Amino acid sequence: MKKLINNVEDVVAESLEGFLMANRRTHQQVAGVNGLVVNDINKKKVSVITGGGSGHEPVFIGLTGEGMADGAALGSVFASPDPHTILEVIKGANTDEGVLCLVINYAGDTMNFGVASELAELEGINVATALVTDDVASAPKGQEEERRGIAGLLLVTKVTGAAAQEGYTLTETKQVAEKANENIRSLSVALTPCSLPGSKANFTIEEDAYEFGMGIHGEPGIQKKKLQAADKIVEEMVTVIADDLELQEADEVVVLVNGTGATSLLELNIVHRQVGKLMENKGVVIYDSIIGSHCTSLEMAGVSISMLRLDAELKRLYNAPAYTPYFYKRGEQT
Amino acid sequence: MKKLINNVEDVVAESLEGFLMANRRTHQQVAGVNGLVVNDINKKKVSVITGGGSGHEPVFIGLTGEGMADGAALGSVFASPDPHTILEVIKGANTDEGVLCLVINYAGDTMNFGVASELAELEGINVATALVTDDVASAPKGQEEERRGIAGLLLVTKVTGAAAQEGYTLTETKQVAEKANENIRSLSVALTPCSLPGSKANFTIEEDAYEFGMGIHGEPGIQKKKLQAADKIVEEMVTVIADDLELQEADEVVVLVNGTGATSLLELNIVHRQVGKLMENKGVVIYDSIIGSHCTSLEMAGVSISMLRLDAELKRLYNAPAYTPYFYKRGEQT
Repeated sequence: MKKLINNVEDVVAESLEGFLMANRRTHQQVAGVNGLVVNDINKKKVSVITGGGSGHEPVFIGLTGEGMADGAALGSVFASPDPHTILEVIKGANTDEGVLCLVINYAGDTMNFGVASELAELEGINVATALVTDDVASAPKGQEEERRGIAGLLLVTKVTGAAAQEGYTLTETKQVAEKANENIRSLSVALTPCSLPGSKANFTIEEDAYEFGMGIHGEPGIQKKKLQAADKIVEEMVTVIADDLELQEADEVVVLVNGTGATSLLELNIVHRQVGKLMENKGVVIYDSIIGSHCTSLEMAGVSISMLRLDAELKRLYNAPAYTPYFYKRGEQT
Repeated sequence: MKKLINNVEDVVAESLEGFLMANRRTHQQVAGVNGLVVNDINKKKVSVITGGGSGHEPVFIGLTGEGMADGAALGSVFASPDPHTILEVIKGANTDEGVLCLVINYAGDTMNFGVASELAELEGINVATALVTDDVASAPKGQEEERRGIAGLLLVTKVTGAAAQEGYTLTETKQVAEKANENIRSLSVALTPCSLPGSKANFTIEEDAYEFGMGIHGEPGIQKKKLQAADKIVEEMVTVIADDLELQEADEVVVLVNGTGATSLLELNIVHRQVGKLMENKGVVIYDSIIGSHCTSLEMAGVSISMLRLDAELKRLYNAPAYTPYFYKRGEQT
């Protein structure tokens, strides 16, 4: 797969440099590592940081900004950042109120964030971690804590960043992140594979097939299926999500229809149309929808659907203003 | 090429429906056609509308919103909207001050917007048109008016929408659109082709090649070239743009690094890094940069670079607040 890159080993550092050249008014690099923090860290509130492998842009850099995350640690493509990188981002984002790490649940990420957190505590920093485990396809009901984290991270970051902004303590901020995670489910399908820079595609999907329950690093789904109309694919996805989340009539949800890379917005809108119809049939209220490519797997064609069930607290936090280079929210809906 | 669609002939209408379901607080359909306007059209200012073929999303729907365009007419994929659709959008967006149509320069679009404008005038509506001709690859210097319009439309819409918001008359709004167009250049390269829904790719690019000067509907570029490092490709692109725009030391520009569909943000940031270095070498000041997939060609992998040279008026208009579902600007930089 052809890519617009220079040396394979420089991809992440050069991308970060290019991002920061465009966003120097709001963001800065953490010296010496592939990590960034927002300018003017507010020392009087909890900082929220996140991070993980590259190749999912705008995740993770695009999650940082006002009302969202305060920093991000970047690994190589599809590989966790090392503990040193994470530690430097924790130190760069640290405040009087401590640092919450929002981590999507992969072995490398949880291990490296764990080591970095221990090292930070040795330096006297107050650190907590909340895991994101929104991918219903990655482990059965009852084993939610084994599930992987995918695009739902955007919505978890949204409410968690708002809680920190409101002045929640570190413990309260962690609790709200966990509550958001308990109320969010995502599911992904892939139509085409993706390839790491400098490599061929690391898996294949037949010309007339799609992968149901695909992971964001090309982890195989639950099933390979024969390609069908978008409405049918979406119905299968929404059924799994709604069942797992035990959605009830009159529940309110935020929907994220997320492109995984090569999927046109034309298609994402068609997917959202069917999500809307199915929710209406169920009597579930879509409070708001986000449609776009927010958590990608390089040039993979596919879509993930996430649903976050709101209560009064999560709705208030969702509605708070937020501004990153790739996501904004101006405040309460009218 | 696999796509998440239902029936090929319903793609545009279903996509519009899905978009509007997510954006009903700010946008509404123009009854009976594939067109939309913002809610609460301000009758005391000029309306700006745009439109063209589908498949370039977020262009054109994503150009509509506060401080940007007030409406958009949508054609089939890669085909101009018909005069009736355009006329209905003009009528839906009409105000006491008239309607300016921002049209990218393609035969079908200019013809159909022309017919629709004549019909609107017969109904007593005050209409003017400004063409966008930013693609330096599509005609040589000296024949600027024959050039096609591509991603630069985003920046022309930004300043033109701001002018309308400031209270410019229809004539003045048209003049500022033309001034922006005279000061903008774009150039696109493609690494892979794209395919219309229901069809195979309508052209090929060899495995080790890229197309220099590619059009947004797969129009062939100036040259097929052997794939090379991103920095080299970007240097070739920037040289053509800077020469054509006759950029001088101390000029200020807004840069748009635009993905054409399947291009990861990881790559776009790497492209922006090199644009920044080259401009610094030239002594040209990048006032602001936008990096993202704003004007696409379905799932085409590639990038376009646009540069808008600012003067005091264009800078003020660029800095004005703007909010669409896919682009925002909070007001003056600090």
